[in-house]
Amino acid sequence: MTGHFITFEGGEGAGKSTQVKRLNDHLIKAGYDILLTREPGGSEGAEALREFLLFGGHSLSLRSEIMAHFAARCDHIDQVIKPALEKGKIVICDRYTDSTLAYQGYGLGKGDQTILSFIQKLILLIDLQPEQTFIFTIPYAIAQQRLQQRSQKTDRYEKQNEDYHHRVADGFIQIAKDHPSRCHIINGHDKMETIEQIIFNKVHQQFPDIIL
Amino acid sequence: MTGHFITFEGGEGAGKSTQVKRLNDHLIKAGYDILLTREPGGSEGAEALREFLLFGGHSLSLRSEIMAHFAARCDHIDQVIKPALEKGKIVICDRYTDSTLAYQGYGLGKGDQTILSFIQKLILLIDLQPEQTFIFTIPYAIAQQRLQQRSQKTDRYEKQNEDYHHRVADGFIQIAKDHPSRCHIINGHDKMETIEQIIFNKVHQQFPDIIL
Repeated sequence: MTGHFITFEGGEGAGKSTQVKRLNDHLIKAGYDILLTREPGGSEGAEALREFLLFGGHSLSLRSEIMAHFAARCDHIDQVIKPALEKGKIVICDRYTDSTLAYQGYGLGKGDQTILSFIQKLILLIDLQPEQTFIFTIPYAIAQQRLQQRSQKTDRYEKQNEDYHHRVADGFIQIAKDHPSRCHIINGHDKMETIEQIIFNKVHQQFPDIIL
Repeated sequence: MTGHFITFEGGEGAGKSTQVKRLNDHLIKAGYDILLTREPGGSEGAEALREFLLFGGHSLSLRSEIMAHFAARCDHIDQVIKPALEKGKIVICDRYTDSTLAYQGYGLGKGDQTILSFIQKLILLIDLQPEQTFIFTIPYAIAQQRLQQRSQKTDRYEKQNEDYHHRVADGFIQIAKDHPSRCHIINGHDKMETIEQIIFNKVHQQFPDIIL
């Protein structure tokens, strides 16, 4: 594998997608070959599974839901991410395994050790971890304000209560602490230009061959 | 867990479902509390995933397809099989993990060690293996004759070519060899009454508390 694999994580409304786009555009301008993708989804089969999971209205057990997210992820890896990395591309993915740990493990599973360990075994099994991850944080009230201004359909995770969203946010912080060399916490309340600069610097630090 | 967990495996047209029904009816008459179930499917969420996998027309990667079958299985275990076993029921399941090994591992995956090992790790992860398994075998030509007399819709596995079906059949034999204390090979070409008697005897041998 000769490419690089960078992921963006964190709650909705923290400015993550804006920064994904900025990094992508900047890397393209600098002449790099980029694959910009997202989860859940990212390949035809994974998108179909994503619709099934987010909007299908099926009440799967938590282990089943987690496994189905990893099934979608496997398709995304096998058909999209790995082929791109093998061609030497920089792959930027909006959400990946840390989202499953945060939303299903810490959020729905309330940090239960059996569920976290189930997810960690699946992470090992799929055999592709990102080299660098930006984890966006934002106070709950501000995220809610920002989300109310959007008009897209609400999925079943966004419909959960405030406690759930706090558990997810704390989960993301815990993940960052557990993987300090891979993960960088980004304060989503900072100015966009500041965040952009922090990300460019971190990308260059981690991958000296990428000059931004 | 106080119940018993028995699975039936093997190719289509080998008489498996007839014998599942006979054992079920006989156990009920003998006064036992039975859960009769099947895979893929067996719970509301798993049935929805089954439809998605067998008839959805999505071309998932092989790892993804395997993982999605295990996602369905997790729901089936968590919402149907485990609660029944905890109530002390005898659970009879028409197809289970051995079918994934045979159809996806030996059939689609052509026995590739990476794929077989991927499936075996998932089997360990879901953490519920049957105590007894009957594996039905039948010569290909006879199975085809029997299947032509049925009029149900054909799924994507049944549509595969003859080589594939031979690999699946050989896979089932290999699984039986790998797990001699759990698996019993049943010759689907024997008389129905003979097979029935063999199964009743084996069930009693393995579970002396079950008298048939």
